[in-house]
Amino acid sequence: MSTKTDDRTAAGATPEQLGIGMRFSVHPHTDAFVEVIGGALADAAAAGRTEGLVLDTDEVSTYVGARTEPAEQRLVDYLTAVVAAAHRRSGGGHVVAHVLFSRGCPGEVACDLAVTGLPRPAPVQVEPTGIRAAAQWSLYPLLDGGTDAGDHMAHIEAAIRAATARGTASSPAHYATRLTGDVADVLATAVDAWAQVGAVVPHVVSHLTVSVGSPTAAGA
Amino acid sequence: MSTKTDDRTAAGATPEQLGIGMRFSVHPHTDAFVEVIGGALADAAAAGRTEGLVLDTDEVSTYVGARTEPAEQRLVDYLTAVVAAAHRRSGGGHVVAHVLFSRGCPGEVACDLAVTGLPRPAPVQVEPTGIRAAAQWSLYPLLDGGTDAGDHMAHIEAAIRAATARGTASSPAHYATRLTGDVADVLATAVDAWAQVGAVVPHVVSHLTVSVGSPTAAGA
Repeated sequence: MSTKTDDRTAAGATPEQLGIGMRFSVHPHTDAFVEVIGGALADAAAAGRTEGLVLDTDEVSTYVGARTEPAEQRLVDYLTAVVAAAHRRSGGGHVVAHVLFSRGCPGEVACDLAVTGLPRPAPVQVEPTGIRAAAQWSLYPLLDGGTDAGDHMAHIEAAIRAATARGTASSPAHYATRLTGDVADVLATAVDAWAQVGAVVPHVVSHLTVSVGSPTAAGA
Repeated sequence: MSTKTDDRTAAGATPEQLGIGMRFSVHPHTDAFVEVIGGALADAAAAGRTEGLVLDTDEVSTYVGARTEPAEQRLVDYLTAVVAAAHRRSGGGHVVAHVLFSRGCPGEVACDLAVTGLPRPAPVQVEPTGIRAAAQWSLYPLLDGGTDAGDHMAHIEAAIRAATARGTASSPAHYATRLTGDVADVLATAVDAWAQVGAVVPHVVSHLTVSVGSPTAAGA
């Protein structure tokens, strides 16, 4: 048991109880993809970025569960380290990462969440990487009918306004919002929006496809 | 205006009015990724798979909007053709596709959907490719509080039961369900589930990460 007295502890739910975590996959577009992926995961671990996290890799992706606070900060630090290392290890080549952030549904199939108070974490702080990214971002507040949590689109529109004010949301697209900027700032935008909606809606998921080193970007 | 008398036309909304479509990206893990992606998109177009669809590619992904019926069939046929062609063009190598299916929110930011009746399309029929895929699948019924559309998890659990009965859903994982089988059957599972929930909930999104030719699978 923690003896901290921050907002989240006061709310009575640990990151594990809330099921705060992500699944991600990283795709180096190179013949050496096995070495690049393995090397990037090892680099992030060697840099201490797996502290407070539980990892489980399968054929499609890697599950990362946050076990201790600050949960969102640990997730974004780890993910930023893996993407930056994969980019570096592929010689600045084209790497795409796909990420699913989830909170509020800790089980594998059903959500057995007795919410006693939702945390309101502080925004994350991530050191810039110097690597430019373009991303496609979507946010899903998973409401139930018959609750008083409002209109799902209102939460999404508020998150897009916050990302626009921050300077990472550049333009809307069908089904997603385009984010551009340093990879650290792009990832932080998605993590902060997901955590903020999670202060109001228990079950919130966000998906992000992040591209670095794209020849399309270089040619544009 | 269409003069067809099928269920969807009777419901009064075209695929375009409902915003039925997808965004996808395809990731060949090879130095020749530019040629493989370009060639796969060209192959699918040459095979007539873009009929009834509107395509728009940007730096991160390709938007595909269905304009004519059968909307879901057109989407799954095109996607299956692209993934199979990318796998073939990379010499049977490792290719991952990420797909976002969406319906019920035709605008770029807001949902201006006046629902007069939701379509209940027939299940899609896709020719097997002979290519084995493993996927990570998630389904998001985007309800609003105060409606009578029920519990979002009940819709998800029903979809997982249907996929299990079909034989593609093999095991649950945190935040996603694992699907395995012929790539055509894996894609059809996700498309059918998304369309079925769409008969009850207007705004439904599904994400799918599909992996073929993975060395992890070969080693397992």
